[in-house]
Amino acid sequence: MKILLVNPNTTQAVTDLVLRTAQAAAREGTAFEAVTGTFGPEIIGSRAENALATHGVLELVARHAAGCDAVVLAVSLDTAAWACRELLPIPVVAMTEAALHTAALLAPRFAVLTYGKRLVPVYQELVAGCGLSSRLSAVNAVDVTPQQSFTDPEFVLAEVRAAVLGLVEGGAEAVVLAGAAMAAMAHRLQPDVPVPLLDGVACAVGFAEMLATLRPPRARTGSVSGTGGRAVNGVSAELQALFMQR
Amino acid sequence: MKILLVNPNTTQAVTDLVLRTAQAAAREGTAFEAVTGTFGPEIIGSRAENALATHGVLELVARHAAGCDAVVLAVSLDTAAWACRELLPIPVVAMTEAALHTAALLAPRFAVLTYGKRLVPVYQELVAGCGLSSRLSAVNAVDVTPQQSFTDPEFVLAEVRAAVLGLVEGGAEAVVLAGAAMAAMAHRLQPDVPVPLLDGVACAVGFAEMLATLRPPRARTGSVSGTGGRAVNGVSAELQALFMQR
Amino acid sequence: MKILLVNPNTTQAVTDLVLRTAQAAAREGTAFEAVTGTFGPEIIGSRAENALATHGVLELVARHAAGCDAVVLAVSLDTAAWACRELLPIPVVAMTEAALHTAALLAPRFAVLTYGKRLVPVYQELVAGCGLSSRLSAVNAVDVTPQQSFTDPEFVLAEVRAAVLGLVEGGAEAVVLAGAAMAAMAHRLQPDVPVPLLDGVACAVGFAEMLATLRPPRARTGSVSGTGGRAVNGVSAELQALFMQR
Amino acid sequence: MKILLVNPNTTQAVTDLVLRTAQAAAREGTAFEAVTGTFGPEIIGSRAENALATHGVLELVARHAAGCDAVVLAVSLDTAAWACRELLPIPVVAMTEAALHTAALLAPRFAVLTYGKRLVPVYQELVAGCGLSSRLSAVNAVDVTPQQSFTDPEFVLAEVRAAVLGLVEGGAEAVVLAGAAMAAMAHRLQPDVPVPLLDGVACAVGFAEMLATLRPPRARTGSVSGTGGRAVNGVSAELQALFMQR
Amino acid sequence: MKILLVNPNTTQAVTDLVLRTAQAAAREGTAFEAVTGTFGPEIIGSRAENALATHGVLELVARHAAGCDAVVLAVSLDTAAWACRELLPIPVVAMTEAALHTAALLAPRFAVLTYGKRLVPVYQELVAGCGLSSRLSAVNAVDVTPQQSFTDPEFVLAEVRAAVLGLVEGGAEAVVLAGAAMAAMAHRLQPDVPVPLLDGVACAVGFAEMLATLRPPRARTGSVSGTGGRAVNGVSAELQALFMQR
Amino acid sequence: MKILLVNPNTTQAVTDLVLRTAQAAAREGTAFEAVTGTFGPEIIGSRAENALATHGVLELVARHAAGCDAVVLAVSLDTAAWACRELLPIPVVAMTEAALHTAALLAPRFAVLTYGKRLVPVYQELVAGCGLSSRLSAVNAVDVTPQQSFTDPEFVLAEVRAAVLGLVEGGAEAVVLAGAAMAAMAHRLQPDVPVPLLDGVACAVGFAEMLATLRPPRARTGSVSGTGGRAVNGVSAELQALFMQR
Repeated sequence: MKILLVNPNTTQAVTDLVLRTAQAAAREGTAFEAVTGTFGPEIIGSRAENALATHGVLELVARHAAGCDAVVLAVSLDTAAWACRELLPIPVVAMTEAALHTAALLAPRFAVLTYGKRLVPVYQELVAGCGLSSRLSAVNAVDVTPQQSFTDPEFVLAEVRAAVLGLVEGGAEAVVLAGAAMAAMAHRLQPDVPVPLLDGVACAVGFAEMLATLRPPRARTGSVSGTGGRAVNGVSAELQALFMQR
Repeated sequence: MKILLVNPNTTQAVTDLVLRTAQAAAREGTAFEAVTGTFGPEIIGSRAENALATHGVLELVARHAAGCDAVVLAVSLDTAAWACRELLPIPVVAMTEAALHTAALLAPRFAVLTYGKRLVPVYQELVAGCGLSSRLSAVNAVDVTPQQSFTDPEFVLAEVRAAVLGLVEGGAEAVVLAGAAMAAMAHRLQPDVPVPLLDGVACAVGFAEMLATLRPPRARTGSVSGTGGRAVNGVSAELQALFMQR
Repeated sequence: MKILLVNPNTTQAVTDLVLRTAQAAAREGTAFEAVTGTFGPEIIGSRAENALATHGVLELVARHAAGCDAVVLAVSLDTAAWACRELLPIPVVAMTEAALHTAALLAPRFAVLTYGKRLVPVYQELVAGCGLSSRLSAVNAVDVTPQQSFTDPEFVLAEVRAAVLGLVEGGAEAVVLAGAAMAAMAHRLQPDVPVPLLDGVACAVGFAEMLATLRPPRARTGSVSGTGGRAVNGVSAELQALFMQR
Repeated sequence: MKILLVNPNTTQAVTDLVLRTAQAAAREGTAFEAVTGTFGPEIIGSRAENALATHGVLELVARHAAGCDAVVLAVSLDTAAWACRELLPIPVVAMTEAALHTAALLAPRFAVLTYGKRLVPVYQELVAGCGLSSRLSAVNAVDVTPQQSFTDPEFVLAEVRAAVLGLVEGGAEAVVLAGAAMAAMAHRLQPDVPVPLLDGVACAVGFAEMLATLRPPRARTGSVSGTGGRAVNGVSAELQALFMQR
Repeated sequence: MKILLVNPNTTQAVTDLVLRTAQAAAREGTAFEAVTGTFGPEIIGSRAENALATHGVLELVARHAAGCDAVVLAVSLDTAAWACRELLPIPVVAMTEAALHTAALLAPRFAVLTYGKRLVPVYQELVAGCGLSSRLSAVNAVDVTPQQSFTDPEFVLAEVRAAVLGLVEGGAEAVVLAGAAMAAMAHRLQPDVPVPLLDGVACAVGFAEMLATLRPPRARTGSVSGTGGRAVNGVSAELQALFMQR
Repeated sequence: MKILLVNPNTTQAVTDLVLRTAQAAAREGTAFEAVTGTFGPEIIGSRAENALATHGVLELVARHAAGCDAVVLAVSLDTAAWACRELLPIPVVAMTEAALHTAALLAPRFAVLTYGKRLVPVYQELVAGCGLSSRLSAVNAVDVTPQQSFTDPEFVLAEVRAAVLGLVEGGAEAVVLAGAAMAAMAHRLQPDVPVPLLDGVACAVGFAEMLATLRPPRARTGSVSGTGGRAVNGVSAELQALFMQR
């Protein structure tokens, strides 16, 4: 089985990190193709950067999805997930939705932790979009940048640990670490935390493997059925072809 | 990997059916122990039978979960799922919640189809309990009994097909077939249906395999942490021991 | 009028306490038959004990409801309430739902206080099941066990008083004391508290008397209509008969 | 026990009807003082008439509540219920909220039937204000006027019966007849209807008796605590006095 | 364009204040007729005063709306807004709903600040009635009276500033100042506050101007269509005429 | 006052149409700069085309917003609205949200009508994102393409009229016509429809004029505050500059 791992950020180090996490979580026999954004934000940290990355995700799947069995969107705002489902005949799983739906089977109420207070409402909206607001105990943020995960990992780890324990104190019975740059932390912090810590990349790989086995057919009607025969202009030939494909 | 497949109904034919469905959906290397209720309802078709089956589920997991890597509750009302999570150190996945959370990754809105109109509000409550009401387009029922799945399968199949197509017409972009006795139908009906049809047993097996690989730790605090040291009376020695276990 | 008072816990002292509270709240002419669980948990303090008590409730009503005008479930998680409504031709009122719906006529927003933090989400789910989440200001718990109500009542009283005042400070305009063992406290603490304190047993007795007077008919269709003619195995003859009864 | 029965409409025939219904539903020993609006709408049939009746309710309770043990608002839009709770030291129960909270103990999902399509959204808002929208299956209306209940009762009865059966077909497991002029119909139609039919006046009387027995204290803080010492102008001396009362 | 500015409180100073705020916010060419309640509360500070003011609003619009192009309800509980829409052929805009819907275009989540803790749940209900609860971060109150806005403005300003900053810290991305007496504060405090501060009067004037330009027709069906031909008694001739008008 | 009118579709005829509608709705003195997408979809009709248009919107505002007082997004899925608010110091109003919030001041419940059944759930999600689901009676679609508005306008008009009347029959008290290509229809169809018909372009122009007058400051904190200093790659110099701008 081959999974396309899509990082629309233009930072290769993030791709490398999520690939390692994905490989550690995968079944034997699962291979990955990990791709990095060629334009757009370095690391998404705002609504506008996320909006821009939407186009980047489409270009990446247009160029690389052929021959894959599933797509994992390794971007913690689940950028363009439903658009990809319209365009592709294979399952598409985004990392934060995967972690939320996994949490829903483990814990009556769960929380989300991210980087940077300005994204707190954005994650609240993402959880609401998944329909899971009634299961959410809180969203909180550590006041560090994703970049610091690479430059000062021990400080970030301590901040994340403290924030996770605060969420548990507030009633979270599982915690989703939202942010591709947090991918490696769940494993390291789990021993210090009395509830399950969920990393979106690992959950998304699990879901992608499951769906690639289950092989649900692509919808032939409705809002995620193939668009087929739509002309779009000024984008790559591969993306144009994908929009035209019936 | 070994999965305990729990059918709290006392009807062996249902167990046989869900076991076949589970085996067809499983990865290579996954083995099943399928167990049937020793007391309680023949086939759950009401709130009271479901309430009674709660005890049956607890007895079955107390006697059979040791040595397993995960539990699948092959009962479409997801009977006693959270109670089992408190009592057991291994992942527990119930069939309808599994199908609903799988549907949530495939379709913006999905429907549920079951047997017998009197269960329609019960499934609406189950979906609400999962937190997914905003994703639900409808719950509907075919006016046949689970038993007819065994005695008059072609009639039941035709009824289910018509009902599924009605749900799609009403806006469902995926349909969950809720009812252990429907387990085999998703595969047969899928070619006639323009959106994904989800069978709870197959989805639950996929989730159980995924969680048994992910190995999230058992919560040490909160409402699903181990109860430990609770004395209960008048039940089997195995169930008493499970409540005492720290 | 005769009301069956059902305590599925196996602790007689709890039954004695709720009976005294019920008698103090009842109209003249109301008599009670108070029954105690013969198997299952000593005092429900977890999801799994509540699941087990479900069967106990069914056995108690099967043996004792004949000749009664209404049933009060004197168990603060309202265990098996809808199942009992399916099985019995007389009104069934559970204690916490009774207190919540009473609170709804007295206060725009109300809170729930219980024993033990691990039950907080369980009560949140119970309130959601009643449909009253938008009226709830908070659920909180005192860190004592129901048993301490009997062994160290003054300490428990002080803890409950402090917690109730905290809930009022947070916006509660009435407070429901959830827990059969708290039944006697509402009366004692009320003078210290500036909003109504509601005890589930007293409210449930009031509702049971009201419904036994109103005599709404049993539904002949829908999810709480009589199940009639359902075969169940391995339970008492009385419970088997109840499931068969049309 | 003495209950003030408040009809803010200026139509005496409605008062007479609700008084008879209240008397039929009351316990032995319960007496009523039934009062009719002295200004405002003849029969409330719109948002504006309801807004005007708000003042009428306040005047009626200011003049007549002294010496009563509870107030029943016999107006199906529950006009000024929370305002009355602020102003009065005794329990106040409005008829539709009483029926809704009673229905909530009898049926997982219930419907409301009223007169005149233009009130349908108004009742939906009333149910939402009670916090019970998730329990509501539908609101519907018969296309007759309240006045026709008096002039052509058999026609109205037939229309109401048909509409109730339609709501049951649509999933209602109990039906609230909303409209003071429907007060007598629940009793007559019940034999034809397979789920409980609830009349707000009977339910409100039951609640008022229950609360007058329970005697919850008046809140001393919060949004329904006594306003005390508020000067209002241009209204009756009794109403002025009520606003000033601490 | 002429806008009727309705203050149902009997305090002329409040009318003067809101008129100045309205004039400052209006386009060139917009004229106002500002009217003050002739009976009822001095300043609404409770549910009961608001209920009484309902009648006052109706009388004011009945006497003064003729010849105007729109109505602004300069009362922060949006008293009788939907009733006025039924009665009048011109647009009616209430001040707090106007501020909330304006905030919804500026900020993903917003808060409301008012005078006096007892109104906090009342504003929560108002926001819910607008359908905007999911956009609300919090409602809070400063512990001062509206009267202090006139007698000790600097103290009130400092309290309001501190409370607003607390709401921003808690996640508000815009803050609505609810209370006619706060009308002038938004402008003065804005420089100290890092998110938009919204005053209901200014927003309502903007909406009224917009709607008077857009000229949506009055509904001829539904719950806000004209009531036409309804007899009401004991009120002013102007209000009687308004209810009769088809 | 100058308003930038943004059509990210690459079809100039749509821009021409919305410009005429905007001009007809504007106050005297309001000027427009209307711009058309230079790459991306011809007319958005799917989730994927909408995702692609996100980038197009950002490029258009980056190039053209300087010197404008407000932006109107003339795209009925309100593409990239929050992203634009982060990036720009002037008010940004999207057409469908504008129509929804206007409808909320006119009608207790309103509906949305669009082109093509596959967009129905997408508009339901848009309404939910605005927080207005509880105000929504329905979303429906006519089975025509936006292109047919230009090629067969009378047929489209008849279809839209019939669908609008169906929504009114189902309880809508106002109807939002969602789709830039429907912009001119509200005016023509209004005489045939008994409730207000709202066109997003006209409402958005009204809001933009109102906000440009009100001049709320840009947030300096929170999820829509300026991103400032973010490096993005592979986009136009103007868009790069906008992301860097503090």
